[in-house]
Amino acid sequence: FSSMSASGGPTPPFTTLSISQPASHVTHVELHRPEKRNAMNQAFWSEMIDCFNQIAEDPECRVVVFSGAGKLFTAGIDLMDMAGGLLRPDADDTARISWKVRQTISKYQETFSVIEKCPKPVVVAVHGACVGAGVDLITACDIRLCTQDAWFQVKEVDIGLAADVGTLQRLPKVIGSGSLVNELALTARKMYSDEAKSSGLVSRVFPDKETLMAGAMEVAGEIASRSPVAVQGTKINLIFSRDHSVKEGLDFAAMWNMSMLQTDDLMKSAQAALEKKSIKQVVFSKL
Amino acid sequence: FSSMSASGGPTPPFTTLSISQPASHVTHVELHRPEKRNAMNQAFWSEMIDCFNQIAEDPECRVVVFSGAGKLFTAGIDLMDMAGGLLRPDADDTARISWKVRQTISKYQETFSVIEKCPKPVVVAVHGACVGAGVDLITACDIRLCTQDAWFQVKEVDIGLAADVGTLQRLPKVIGSGSLVNELALTARKMYSDEAKSSGLVSRVFPDKETLMAGAMEVAGEIASRSPVAVQGTKINLIFSRDHSVKEGLDFAAMWNMSMLQTDDLMKSAQAALEKKSIKQVVFSKL
Amino acid sequence: FSSMSASGGPTPPFTTLSISQPASHVTHVELHRPEKRNAMNQAFWSEMIDCFNQIAEDPECRVVVFSGAGKLFTAGIDLMDMAGGLLRPDADDTARISWKVRQTISKYQETFSVIEKCPKPVVVAVHGACVGAGVDLITACDIRLCTQDAWFQVKEVDIGLAADVGTLQRLPKVIGSGSLVNELALTARKMYSDEAKSSGLVSRVFPDKETLMAGAMEVAGEIASRSPVAVQGTKINLIFSRDHSVKEGLDFAAMWNMSMLQTDDLMKSAQAALEKKSIKQVVFSKL
Amino acid sequence: FSSMSASGGPTPPFTTLSISQPASHVTHVELHRPEKRNAMNQAFWSEMIDCFNQIAEDPECRVVVFSGAGKLFTAGIDLMDMAGGLLRPDADDTARISWKVRQTISKYQETFSVIEKCPKPVVVAVHGACVGAGVDLITACDIRLCTQDAWFQVKEVDIGLAADVGTLQRLPKVIGSGSLVNELALTARKMYSDEAKSSGLVSRVFPDKETLMAGAMEVAGEIASRSPVAVQGTKINLIFSRDHSVKEGLDFAAMWNMSMLQTDDLMKSAQAALEKKSIKQVVFSKL
Amino acid sequence: FSSMSASGGPTPPFTTLSISQPASHVTHVELHRPEKRNAMNQAFWSEMIDCFNQIAEDPECRVVVFSGAGKLFTAGIDLMDMAGGLLRPDADDTARISWKVRQTISKYQETFSVIEKCPKPVVVAVHGACVGAGVDLITACDIRLCTQDAWFQVKEVDIGLAADVGTLQRLPKVIGSGSLVNELALTARKMYSDEAKSSGLVSRVFPDKETLMAGAMEVAGEIASRSPVAVQGTKINLIFSRDHSVKEGLDFAAMWNMSMLQTDDLMKSAQAALEKKSIKQVVFSKL
Amino acid sequence: FSSMSASGGPTPPFTTLSISQPASHVTHVELHRPEKRNAMNQAFWSEMIDCFNQIAEDPECRVVVFSGAGKLFTAGIDLMDMAGGLLRPDADDTARISWKVRQTISKYQETFSVIEKCPKPVVVAVHGACVGAGVDLITACDIRLCTQDAWFQVKEVDIGLAADVGTLQRLPKVIGSGSLVNELALTARKMYSDEAKSSGLVSRVFPDKETLMAGAMEVAGEIASRSPVAVQGTKINLIFSRDHSVKEGLDFAAMWNMSMLQTDDLMKSAQAALEKKSIKQVVFSKL
Repeated sequence: FSSMSASGGPTPPFTTLSISQPASHVTHVELHRPEKRNAMNQAFWSEMIDCFNQIAEDPECRVVVFSGAGKLFTAGIDLMDMAGGLLRPDADDTARISWKVRQTISKYQETFSVIEKCPKPVVVAVHGACVGAGVDLITACDIRLCTQDAWFQVKEVDIGLAADVGTLQRLPKVIGSGSLVNELALTARKMYSDEAKSSGLVSRVFPDKETLMAGAMEVAGEIASRSPVAVQGTKINLIFSRDHSVKEGLDFAAMWNMSMLQTDDLMKSAQAALEKKSIKQVVFSKL
Repeated sequence: FSSMSASGGPTPPFTTLSISQPASHVTHVELHRPEKRNAMNQAFWSEMIDCFNQIAEDPECRVVVFSGAGKLFTAGIDLMDMAGGLLRPDADDTARISWKVRQTISKYQETFSVIEKCPKPVVVAVHGACVGAGVDLITACDIRLCTQDAWFQVKEVDIGLAADVGTLQRLPKVIGSGSLVNELALTARKMYSDEAKSSGLVSRVFPDKETLMAGAMEVAGEIASRSPVAVQGTKINLIFSRDHSVKEGLDFAAMWNMSMLQTDDLMKSAQAALEKKSIKQVVFSKL
Repeated sequence: FSSMSASGGPTPPFTTLSISQPASHVTHVELHRPEKRNAMNQAFWSEMIDCFNQIAEDPECRVVVFSGAGKLFTAGIDLMDMAGGLLRPDADDTARISWKVRQTISKYQETFSVIEKCPKPVVVAVHGACVGAGVDLITACDIRLCTQDAWFQVKEVDIGLAADVGTLQRLPKVIGSGSLVNELALTARKMYSDEAKSSGLVSRVFPDKETLMAGAMEVAGEIASRSPVAVQGTKINLIFSRDHSVKEGLDFAAMWNMSMLQTDDLMKSAQAALEKKSIKQVVFSKL
Repeated sequence: FSSMSASGGPTPPFTTLSISQPASHVTHVELHRPEKRNAMNQAFWSEMIDCFNQIAEDPECRVVVFSGAGKLFTAGIDLMDMAGGLLRPDADDTARISWKVRQTISKYQETFSVIEKCPKPVVVAVHGACVGAGVDLITACDIRLCTQDAWFQVKEVDIGLAADVGTLQRLPKVIGSGSLVNELALTARKMYSDEAKSSGLVSRVFPDKETLMAGAMEVAGEIASRSPVAVQGTKINLIFSRDHSVKEGLDFAAMWNMSMLQTDDLMKSAQAALEKKSIKQVVFSKL
Repeated sequence: FSSMSASGGPTPPFTTLSISQPASHVTHVELHRPEKRNAMNQAFWSEMIDCFNQIAEDPECRVVVFSGAGKLFTAGIDLMDMAGGLLRPDADDTARISWKVRQTISKYQETFSVIEKCPKPVVVAVHGACVGAGVDLITACDIRLCTQDAWFQVKEVDIGLAADVGTLQRLPKVIGSGSLVNELALTARKMYSDEAKSSGLVSRVFPDKETLMAGAMEVAGEIASRSPVAVQGTKINLIFSRDHSVKEGLDFAAMWNMSMLQTDDLMKSAQAALEKKSIKQVVFSKL
Repeated sequence: FSSMSASGGPTPPFTTLSISQPASHVTHVELHRPEKRNAMNQAFWSEMIDCFNQIAEDPECRVVVFSGAGKLFTAGIDLMDMAGGLLRPDADDTARISWKVRQTISKYQETFSVIEKCPKPVVVAVHGACVGAGVDLITACDIRLCTQDAWFQVKEVDIGLAADVGTLQRLPKVIGSGSLVNELALTARKMYSDEAKSSGLVSRVFPDKETLMAGAMEVAGEIASRSPVAVQGTKINLIFSRDHSVKEGLDFAAMWNMSMLQTDDLMKSAQAALEKKSIKQVVFSKL
């Protein structure tokens, strides 16, 4: 799957992301600052927003694979590049500094929330280190896969802050053990792939990056071949359900499907199922 | 446990369900369309509501065991029988079609929500396939057990829709791995009993259907022998807690127990505990 | 770690708790009624509130280790000592009895909720039996560790009531399997350490009490060495997130950090990280 | 409007309600126990549920006018007829009595909640006394009109209970003054029509019952002449908004209208508006 | 009603409050720093908490009348006395100052929230000025009455802050006009008694303080004469309803009344009603 | 106040809005399509978003006055200009049309939600007709003023739809009478200025447009002269409180003010108050 990693570097106008279409309806987004261990600099935080807003609007894309270029997934925030802007805004008193800090945090939160707002599922493939803001990023993705050598670290407490761009908010809803979530967040200890699997952070582990990328592509291919009305409706309903009661989730689903069941995809899919035809042969309209 | 499965087929007036009382205070509900792989036809959707509303009112019943007759648990929705009514209501414009579709979905949601509204715990025993709406059904049950050969498939995306009768709403609150939930719902891949156990979908796996049914009966027997005030209050509080904050759950429990602690069952149970007598010897009043 | 368990018994004015400082910024609270299997009597329920309110205010304490003296963690509620007050308040009619019962339950809920309201993380170390109200207690702690011989039992249904001081409210948010939670709460069966680990109730299992206490101290030491602004903010955000949607959690974090990022700890921690210095060498101001 | 009040008494099978169709698409429901001052007996509580469930399903009905036969609107609950069943259920201990009382209250709540669940707007016309459960009833209606001689009394506190079938829940969302709501509910004082108007409980006051009924019919006629898709969608959205944040209300409206805007009624209505034709001349399909 | 105002000043141990029992089951709390225009000093903020916690526990008290001694109700916060502690806590960095400020605000919020947590209704009688924190105070009361010469001012914006101890939180739920609430809070303009009445802030206006106090006592007397189970349950349900959906409010009421309807007060009250006896003659047990 | 209305028409790049600075820190936004009765065309819907996003970022602006040019405030949506795009998106099936309709509605909702998200208060001055989407617009503003000849009409039901861009969501939270809200929304009847005042929709009525604009400017001037930290914090807290419980509102306020009380504006404002100096003389830093 060499086609998956853009060999030549970032895709203009992006300087930190490389975008490609390795298969029909599949978009591959690669975090591409390998020489900086894919650390997240200021450009990254805004490029992610542009990138995923475009993907959300692109009718050709039905699923996203996200991975990191080079030796590891990401070292997290690029402290050198980031610190000034965020922490020392120019303002006249503490209230005004706080006001600006809050605005900045909200913008940074958006960097990962766009993944969740994008109705196309995002499969993230992690190899090597996934540190700090990397954990914030992957918890906003829908499906998490990793290599045997992958490790994860909720790093924020080590640099003096409570994580505020997603980890503390999403990790408890992503893995089943409250004790483990707390231990990871409060001690910043590393978690390796086996514990990531047994705790449910990732749903599959692969021997190495090559098999990981092949596995991610296969999952993405399965998703891309299905009705986009069904797939994107599923993502939207799953995210709504996570944040609401079962009753509210059911009411939402009934209202969602009162129109979405009126899709031709239903007949096409059912037809294929009855004829034992592969779903991959069915052609669905754009969404 | 041959007494558990009604040999002669459905219990009138039901045509898809067989009801029996295999033990004191235990009701066995069997999905009984073995020749149709227990597929859910139109009759099923309304019989379930009648069945569980009766169970909710029946003071003799303190716990329910639910299972499927024949070779597998259920193949899910009976597409042949269902499609017309649901998807093609007769109405004058898109708004009016949508209005009717929403009503229909709400009714179908009720088919499984009655399991949850019934204050008696429901132990579901799955053998073989549990497909599509079968997953919607079992996630509404309280305790899930299965055989070694059981497998589960969130099938809806394969036939062009987002699941709207429970799976997308309850599955994320039932198993601990967000990544796995999303993968199952977005790719419709099968999950086998070992992954069902490690992910927490089921709490126990049995070698075959016979041991499964014996195990389900044992669990049911444990529940049936305890105070119905305690048991049903526990179910009601657990379901409330799932959908509310801890603070709200505690307030609810305090208000619930302000009267429920005034039960004679408390003294009877405590007495038995102090005298090291088996709880099975204690006789509790009807509830 | 003999320094961890107060050899001479309870620390006045407490009669059921022993308090010590086994390491810098670490407070050890030991449930100390070994001759009564650490059963929770009336004194315990109010001493816990005083104890944790003091800890919450004590700037020297940054993390708490909680354990039980003697052969086991706790046998749960002391039925002999408790029953009268709670269950038979003196009042003129059912409404007035109910009114008082509700007040009493609310007070008892507070006994464990203080653990959660205290912003300092609480690491609980369980050896041997942890029964009934013991489970209510440990689910209110942040990190759970146990010995190989530990076992857990949600006992309330056995004595005729629905658990109302935390277990039914917190356990479903602490472990990932809904089926297992329900089974434990409805049947009162024992769960042993291996299942406690695989289900996520505890995040680590140790061979015996000595290694357990050493492990708990190590975890506590990691936490104590980090910025208290970061650590306590992390606990507060994790608890808020548990009970709110992701969007609400993110908004909360942005508002929290608009001032908390203006701490000197951030610079001190980042400095240490850049200089590859151990965080344990950094001195943080009191909080 | 003599056609509005059924002269001959209740409409079988109802014994407490008289149903008529005074105008196209308008259903008139009259509380009809004039000799008992329209007091609510056991029959009433279940007949209301049947009546409004039928109305909800009846495609001919687009709006409901609700009023009382005889000299006054209603004296509230019929204490003689009701007391036994509700307050003294036959059961073995306090917990079991409480269990049954809760079920009974829930059923009685449904008596008025059906008004709210019915998507057709309900215009209530009050003359003379509206006491106790009468206030519970009218707060569940959509539009409240009254005569100059009408008066309202939240009576429950006078007979020793907190109102539990709607008044305490809906009145604060129906009128703007928290102080007035509390005063009415805590002192059971009478409120006359002028204060009912100035406080917003009713939106119009009429000189006598004849003009009141004419006014109610006129309002109902305005509603009946408009698109049922628009009217019923408006009621559903208003009720949702009352109980949710503005953001949630907006999301709901967008999802609702994604299909409902695809109605032919929109073009028909817009056409009429552009041609300055009366909306009463437009024919809309059934809903 | 000279008996209502404690002539000799504060009631020890209070220094800012005067407590008396002007009538059976009625407690009169008077804000008593007339020489300081009843400005709220540090003592006041904690005395209120003690005072209302005692009232909440006092079985003799069934209703509270709250008023101000001297020429006006209150000039609000005592800036001279307060400023230091609140605004300039001693701490090492901005995060730590913020931490302490938040704790202080929470404590001050409690000063007024105790009024709401106390299950006994609180009737507040305002004469002359009610400024700043005075508005925070009265919005936490249940029934608001005032003199013709009373005026109200949401003062906080004038001294550079957003009101944080109740006004911005409760005022929008207390009066019906969003535009008026915003105008008052954003411009700090005075509102006089006539607008207070028409907007619903107060439910009655009296010519002068003497008639006001007589009116307040009459309202309090009405409340005091009714069943405390009914009255206090009504307050608790009204406050719950304000903050929840109608459905949640109804569920709460059903659970509340499943035990509270089992009071003897119901029979006593109904008996009196049937016998046309004044409720004031009925003797209810303590609560 | 001729300076308030831009005589020469829209301010480039806007084609439907005219922007001016009639006084220090006050921005005047005028809906400027007088020849089209200020009907809202496609350009308007996006220009509003740009306009208010700019205002939100503009440190010079502390308050906004919004009004309509010409003979009336607005005739609402420009049906001619709008219909095609919204109602007939080009897509392959009902599901895909619905998908696009939902996106469009969400964008149109944003047109008015930006008013609410902008932390600067918006005073709206209505003269003459305010129809349909005009009501959606003004309910998103903070303070509503109008002329004697103003009238308001919730028009949507007349053209066959449920209002989906704000009226049904905000109107019930803006005025106190549920009955009136429902009547207006279900019958589309006009409401005149006197009822608008008595119901609380507007907080003041002026004889004509000139005095209205002078009054709006005076209110705006009062707001502009106060601390922007206090004013904008007040708006943010009021909007949060509207959508949350009192307890959540208080917690939010405590967290907000933990940093905002550390503003120099507090001392400046308090100083002016103590010195009896007009707040208009105080100079506050930009925010």
